[in-house]
Amino acid sequence: MHEKCGVVGISLEDRDAARPLYYSLYALQHRGQESAGIVTHDGFQQHSHVEMGLVGDAFGPGDLESLNGSNGIGHVRYPTAGSVNTCCAQPFSVSFKSGSLGLSHNGNLVNADEIGDELADLGHAFTSDGDTEVIAHDLARNLLEEDLVRAVKRTMERIHGSYSLTIMHDETVLGVRDPQGNRPLCIGELDDGYVLTSESAAIDTLDGELIRDVEPGELVVLHPDGTGYDTYQLVEQANTAHCFFEHVYFARPDSTIDGSLVYEVRRELGRKLWKESGVESDVVLPVPDSGRAFASGYAEAAQDAGSDIEFAEGLMKNRYVGRTFIMPTQDERERAVRLKLNPIKSTIEGKKVTIIDDSIVRGTTSTQLIQLLKDAGAEEVNVRIGAPAIVAPCYMGIDMASREELIAGDQSVEEICDEIEADSLSYLSIDAIAETLQTSKADLCLGCVTGEYPYDIEGEETDREVTRPEIGEEPTVADD
Amino acid sequence: MHEKCGVVGISLEDRDAARPLYYSLYALQHRGQESAGIVTHDGFQQHSHVEMGLVGDAFGPGDLESLNGSNGIGHVRYPTAGSVNTCCAQPFSVSFKSGSLGLSHNGNLVNADEIGDELADLGHAFTSDGDTEVIAHDLARNLLEEDLVRAVKRTMERIHGSYSLTIMHDETVLGVRDPQGNRPLCIGELDDGYVLTSESAAIDTLDGELIRDVEPGELVVLHPDGTGYDTYQLVEQANTAHCFFEHVYFARPDSTIDGSLVYEVRRELGRKLWKESGVESDVVLPVPDSGRAFASGYAEAAQDAGSDIEFAEGLMKNRYVGRTFIMPTQDERERAVRLKLNPIKSTIEGKKVTIIDDSIVRGTTSTQLIQLLKDAGAEEVNVRIGAPAIVAPCYMGIDMASREELIAGDQSVEEICDEIEADSLSYLSIDAIAETLQTSKADLCLGCVTGEYPYDIEGEETDREVTRPEIGEEPTVADD
Amino acid sequence: MHEKCGVVGISLEDRDAARPLYYSLYALQHRGQESAGIVTHDGFQQHSHVEMGLVGDAFGPGDLESLNGSNGIGHVRYPTAGSVNTCCAQPFSVSFKSGSLGLSHNGNLVNADEIGDELADLGHAFTSDGDTEVIAHDLARNLLEEDLVRAVKRTMERIHGSYSLTIMHDETVLGVRDPQGNRPLCIGELDDGYVLTSESAAIDTLDGELIRDVEPGELVVLHPDGTGYDTYQLVEQANTAHCFFEHVYFARPDSTIDGSLVYEVRRELGRKLWKESGVESDVVLPVPDSGRAFASGYAEAAQDAGSDIEFAEGLMKNRYVGRTFIMPTQDERERAVRLKLNPIKSTIEGKKVTIIDDSIVRGTTSTQLIQLLKDAGAEEVNVRIGAPAIVAPCYMGIDMASREELIAGDQSVEEICDEIEADSLSYLSIDAIAETLQTSKADLCLGCVTGEYPYDIEGEETDREVTRPEIGEEPTVADD
Amino acid sequence: MHEKCGVVGISLEDRDAARPLYYSLYALQHRGQESAGIVTHDGFQQHSHVEMGLVGDAFGPGDLESLNGSNGIGHVRYPTAGSVNTCCAQPFSVSFKSGSLGLSHNGNLVNADEIGDELADLGHAFTSDGDTEVIAHDLARNLLEEDLVRAVKRTMERIHGSYSLTIMHDETVLGVRDPQGNRPLCIGELDDGYVLTSESAAIDTLDGELIRDVEPGELVVLHPDGTGYDTYQLVEQANTAHCFFEHVYFARPDSTIDGSLVYEVRRELGRKLWKESGVESDVVLPVPDSGRAFASGYAEAAQDAGSDIEFAEGLMKNRYVGRTFIMPTQDERERAVRLKLNPIKSTIEGKKVTIIDDSIVRGTTSTQLIQLLKDAGAEEVNVRIGAPAIVAPCYMGIDMASREELIAGDQSVEEICDEIEADSLSYLSIDAIAETLQTSKADLCLGCVTGEYPYDIEGEETDREVTRPEIGEEPTVADD
Repeated sequence: MHEKCGVVGISLEDRDAARPLYYSLYALQHRGQESAGIVTHDGFQQHSHVEMGLVGDAFGPGDLESLNGSNGIGHVRYPTAGSVNTCCAQPFSVSFKSGSLGLSHNGNLVNADEIGDELADLGHAFTSDGDTEVIAHDLARNLLEEDLVRAVKRTMERIHGSYSLTIMHDETVLGVRDPQGNRPLCIGELDDGYVLTSESAAIDTLDGELIRDVEPGELVVLHPDGTGYDTYQLVEQANTAHCFFEHVYFARPDSTIDGSLVYEVRRELGRKLWKESGVESDVVLPVPDSGRAFASGYAEAAQDAGSDIEFAEGLMKNRYVGRTFIMPTQDERERAVRLKLNPIKSTIEGKKVTIIDDSIVRGTTSTQLIQLLKDAGAEEVNVRIGAPAIVAPCYMGIDMASREELIAGDQSVEEICDEIEADSLSYLSIDAIAETLQTSKADLCLGCVTGEYPYDIEGEETDREVTRPEIGEEPTVADD
Repeated sequence: MHEKCGVVGISLEDRDAARPLYYSLYALQHRGQESAGIVTHDGFQQHSHVEMGLVGDAFGPGDLESLNGSNGIGHVRYPTAGSVNTCCAQPFSVSFKSGSLGLSHNGNLVNADEIGDELADLGHAFTSDGDTEVIAHDLARNLLEEDLVRAVKRTMERIHGSYSLTIMHDETVLGVRDPQGNRPLCIGELDDGYVLTSESAAIDTLDGELIRDVEPGELVVLHPDGTGYDTYQLVEQANTAHCFFEHVYFARPDSTIDGSLVYEVRRELGRKLWKESGVESDVVLPVPDSGRAFASGYAEAAQDAGSDIEFAEGLMKNRYVGRTFIMPTQDERERAVRLKLNPIKSTIEGKKVTIIDDSIVRGTTSTQLIQLLKDAGAEEVNVRIGAPAIVAPCYMGIDMASREELIAGDQSVEEICDEIEADSLSYLSIDAIAETLQTSKADLCLGCVTGEYPYDIEGEETDREVTRPEIGEEPTVADD
Repeated sequence: MHEKCGVVGISLEDRDAARPLYYSLYALQHRGQESAGIVTHDGFQQHSHVEMGLVGDAFGPGDLESLNGSNGIGHVRYPTAGSVNTCCAQPFSVSFKSGSLGLSHNGNLVNADEIGDELADLGHAFTSDGDTEVIAHDLARNLLEEDLVRAVKRTMERIHGSYSLTIMHDETVLGVRDPQGNRPLCIGELDDGYVLTSESAAIDTLDGELIRDVEPGELVVLHPDGTGYDTYQLVEQANTAHCFFEHVYFARPDSTIDGSLVYEVRRELGRKLWKESGVESDVVLPVPDSGRAFASGYAEAAQDAGSDIEFAEGLMKNRYVGRTFIMPTQDERERAVRLKLNPIKSTIEGKKVTIIDDSIVRGTTSTQLIQLLKDAGAEEVNVRIGAPAIVAPCYMGIDMASREELIAGDQSVEEICDEIEADSLSYLSIDAIAETLQTSKADLCLGCVTGEYPYDIEGEETDREVTRPEIGEEPTVADD
Repeated sequence: MHEKCGVVGISLEDRDAARPLYYSLYALQHRGQESAGIVTHDGFQQHSHVEMGLVGDAFGPGDLESLNGSNGIGHVRYPTAGSVNTCCAQPFSVSFKSGSLGLSHNGNLVNADEIGDELADLGHAFTSDGDTEVIAHDLARNLLEEDLVRAVKRTMERIHGSYSLTIMHDETVLGVRDPQGNRPLCIGELDDGYVLTSESAAIDTLDGELIRDVEPGELVVLHPDGTGYDTYQLVEQANTAHCFFEHVYFARPDSTIDGSLVYEVRRELGRKLWKESGVESDVVLPVPDSGRAFASGYAEAAQDAGSDIEFAEGLMKNRYVGRTFIMPTQDERERAVRLKLNPIKSTIEGKKVTIIDDSIVRGTTSTQLIQLLKDAGAEEVNVRIGAPAIVAPCYMGIDMASREELIAGDQSVEEICDEIEADSLSYLSIDAIAETLQTSKADLCLGCVTGEYPYDIEGEETDREVTRPEIGEEPTVADD
């Protein structure tokens, strides 16, 4: 169970931004189902609507009507629990003496408590323990003394961690990506304006065109009249720390992130998976829906290599999985996994089977699934995973599991294979990931697969010399 | 937008039926999302919990706790509107002088108003205009004078139309299927009891085994102690009228209905579609999720026939489609279809494309989808449908559309092809359906594809001599 | 905080009972605000609607519409907590093999656990730990074997404690009062039917006439066609144990209970209070609204005796008191009592004041109130209470307080006067109560003012020889 | 059914204002039950919580917790319908470029549409058609160009009608009363701060002292640190137009408004009512609760004059009246009035009765009540009203009724007496009102009893030369 928030910001020429924001959030719904919100500004005042629930439930037609203004930002929130508390109900909005601020955040700060304490000492009252409120207060404070660009720069110098932000200061929409580019953020062009968003699929939904990713450490300021945007490279860092898991799991297959189309990346990872650890069997089954693209690449590579292996949809997913539901207890006869996935016997019975998925977190589901396939008559069950083993928790905004809960936390691949009772098990190599993404490993955040993080996290090792960001020189202004 | 209700009934040896009923309803969730309900009996009294919403939302842990008893029935309801009102909030429960009744109904009566009027004249007050309440009152009335089997028979002689029912009379669970077997109903065996349900996937979910379909006109009475069941062939009819659309669209791919595994039927229909009207192209894309099995059969048959055609997932479905949502208006820049399906450009650009779906109802989505593919660079878009054209409405429990709304209601295939701006369009033949289901056309309900119905419907033609059911002779008792 | 449930039962000639039941519950609203419910029977089936909240919130117009039938019962529930759990969400309804039962209960059984355990051993499952469900199950069980009157008698022989019940067995409405008549129940005649209810004010609301109180130990069976009723003296007991607190506090002033009009009783108690302990002062103030009738009797007696004392409304009550509300904490400047009662300075300043109330429970409010009056300039504050001091808890259905919380639990009148900082304090004598009610003390439940109870309560003394009720002989049938 | 909104504003030294605001709203609850809201400012940002429902339902403990800051305003709203739309969900809050505004309004503007149209032309978007939003936008606009006092003055010069406002500009709390002082507003001192509120009873609730009424046309600015306040007489007008109905009906008896204690005013009006039109009878009954103070003054004057008339509470009011409730239809046997008021027969039977109330609006209730008293055996029913007859609608913020609905709209007192079937009927004179309030008639708003209004209302006559307010000269600063 690992996902994350989605952010968006839109400036249009002369129509209201509320509906395009709404459709964008719908396109980003997979990044967060707990709450949805939109904040707009009509040039005179700010309007806000934030509610718990899915986008479709959070907004009624009247809510969109009352969100006046051609500039706005939006947010969908993923429900986190425990220590890796990524985001809070958003956009966070605050009216302060020099105007109003709205903030949508995807990511996780490492030093939020520290900054929060400083601000509390200065008299700031916080309504939550969320990172976002800390960023908003810090920025608002800076705005009392500085112009917009300098104020953002000062805040970026203080906060440390992963963040992609869309911000609204009065009617101006901004986008900021952390200096290491951990979380995605891109900019797109519409017929009558510009959009900043976590994933390019949201731009497609608006019939717009992806322009490019926002650069790590870059600030993008949309013109409130929808006619263009300015960019400022505020902070430079030697290396990036892109999250490779966006490509493997989080993002929609139809999004392009840091230059790569996610669907093609997954197919290629599947192909590499065959090359690295392909195993002959009668049939390849994706674990739906996450394993589908990997499995089709794997099967294709196998067939290209002359294998007779068949690609089939042998596991039927209950499409209502993921909603509120009372799971069976251990001693109930119903098996939890069977509520999610039902094997199609004719595809499996008497056959050697290979199942393909993107990851194994706790291992419980895998164990149950393999048992299920054997009960359905599979002679052999091989497991191939389209990513390296997850050996450590994520601190950057993804709620995976604690180290103790991770099946690969302290076990070898052989031990895991034994535990889940598979006939064989292989993970993809880290090199295959870097190669497919055409990136150096030094430019990826590999914390969850190496245990070494690109940020300074108490009690954890880091894989780089972490410096507070360097401050950029001259703002550059883009043409539109 | 066409789906239907799901029903279930369970008798267990000595554990509560509430949780297995709950998991069954979850497995049947695709048959109805408007309401969910369970009625149980603990030998002394009846317990009921019926609520609007999805199964997971309708029941909390405390609700299941309070549904005492090892016998019970359940229901999920599909929201219908207008004239084809299939079902109401269910199970319907009524306590009357000789005990209590619970009723779950999937189907649609042709003469409910007539019977309802007769009962109203006898002083019965109805709280809804639903078929189910009419059946319940008629049955309760008969039970005041007759034993259970005779009471059911008398009611079956009065009601005309499609119905699969699970019934609870005090603690006894029954299943009844209409004499023409229009809606599915099957019986399965668990470790410690028996289950009656719309689809066998629900039996799988409980780790049980499908025994067989309930026969048209048959009554199955589960022993309240979970040790067996009796069957009574109450009505015989020369021909059945199975709904072929269950196989094409409604049912889960992993269910076996009237002897055929739905997934294999769809793959085979896809293969026949290639044979009947295969067209060379670069890539075959399923319209997710409904077209996937058809498309894989189609692609397989093509490849077997030596075609180079590639099978790819080029349309990404927003997995939150189908929930409450404010759609764009005609003149908004955002296109409605793009909120549901986003094309992956790399799969489509510069290519000849064939898209495969199970049906075209109004044609609006198809038109938009073809436009979208052309915008994404498709050189050619061919459309192949894995079922015959829908030319007439369904009166048997599926809310498709009125005749005027159906794109094939009064147009030829060529005209439809022009309207949706496809480069070519073919439907599958009715013969291919009958052949794949290994059934005579006379034993299928083909109303929606021929306009001739197996029931007596005012203002419509019938394709058979409709007789009120013949009454069966001797009850047969099954071993367990 | 002490109140109780209200019950009602109605049989009409040929109009629906739902609306008269609804208006009755509204008239009884002061007896319970936590939940409201109605159960009706239309001759064929039972209809039920029970919801949390006030009568007006619990029922919408459609709810009343769907409660078909000219016979029905209703209930309003007072929220109890802790050990003196009086009632649960009601009417409780259950459908069992020989029909359906509905039950509304006001009172408290002493041996519910014992009977509940016996029934549980026989396989009965309880959904709550309420008395009502136990009575319903016991009665239903008896009804499987006996006719209605005998079944009720058998249940009355088993249950011990206070109860006024309205019951519906299929379409027949019954009223039962416990053998000692602890809780009130009366019967009234309407133009077109009969009504059983806790208080006669509900009969007034329906433009009906009070016939008489139901006798202790009596069963009243309304004819389902609204044309009359039969009565059966099922159990005889030497003494009654009427609750005198109904007259002092619980009941509406406009109700007649056990032959006395509550308003006149309170005025007379006020007059006796002057005679027993009248004190000269400038002004007499009622504590609104509970002290008003007492104070007017007191002032009248004083004026008749030649006193110059003035009667005035010097304390203004916030009419929203009693609803959900966040009270100030101890150290907040706002005083809790001031949110409820605000003194009118002109009536109080520089004056000797006497305040009149019906009771002192914990003493906190009295202390604050006296302080408030002194702050407003009262020279002297005398307190007169129109009932004896409450020295012990109530086990019969009223949630007062535990013995430790009662200010009079272990203190003398002088000590209490000191604690609340009054200039003088007097309570009314027990004899004055008995005299005013024209009853022997032996026929009253005086548990809360003597600590000796008319029932067998573990750990408490009793003031009489408690016998399980004697069984009556011949049923008597009343004319109507 | 006529009531109005309540407003409050508080500045404290160093504790949060949320709880005192909450208790103030509770004290003002009678002025509005539809919604309740609080807006606070903590020096850095504004916090707001506005919800439908009663104060106790609108706020949970967590809501108060999160309303940080020692300055704030609050509002309770009365549900208006039709043309006399007084207020909307409030406080209305808006964040604009030079800070944040919060606004609570009691009253009704005559020219809101006109100003709203001007602002809309300047690009302002309104979310409601409420007066309050118009005032807020106009004021915010002025604040972009002027200092606070001048900005308020400019807004006061533009708006015409009745208004008492509490305003928060960033952390500064203001109070403004319209130049004719139509709606009440007063200022009080707490131990640690100052409060502005509609009625002094709210100050009592906080254990504070009433300082004085805010003058017509005066602006009061509280010091944000709770240490004092400044006042500015911004507009002078020759005559005031105080609403006398505040004294007769709306306000709490324990409030002091424009120098008079409401309770004493009502007693005095009762005394004058005896003097003007006293009638000998056996008993005087107040219509509870509105007639009580009038009736006690009336009875007192009668007794002083040597009459034997008795004062008694012969009509018992259901204390749940006024909440949601389904009323009986005309042809139902239950009488609507009996659900509200039940006569105590012993007080009425065989007696000559005089009932006292504050007003007759439509006359329906009076007619039913008189019939009820006669049914209960009254020999004679005299009606005395403690105010002049209402002959015309109110446009200043009270939702009475349209002219056609008013029983006195076009009938003489004799005709009304006939219509309601009273034995005699008298109203109090206008002179008695002015005399009791020690005010000239020219300084009262008498629109509803004369049909001539102190404001310029389209289609109605005015009783004065209406001028747009004169602008005051020098601000005066009060000591504290």
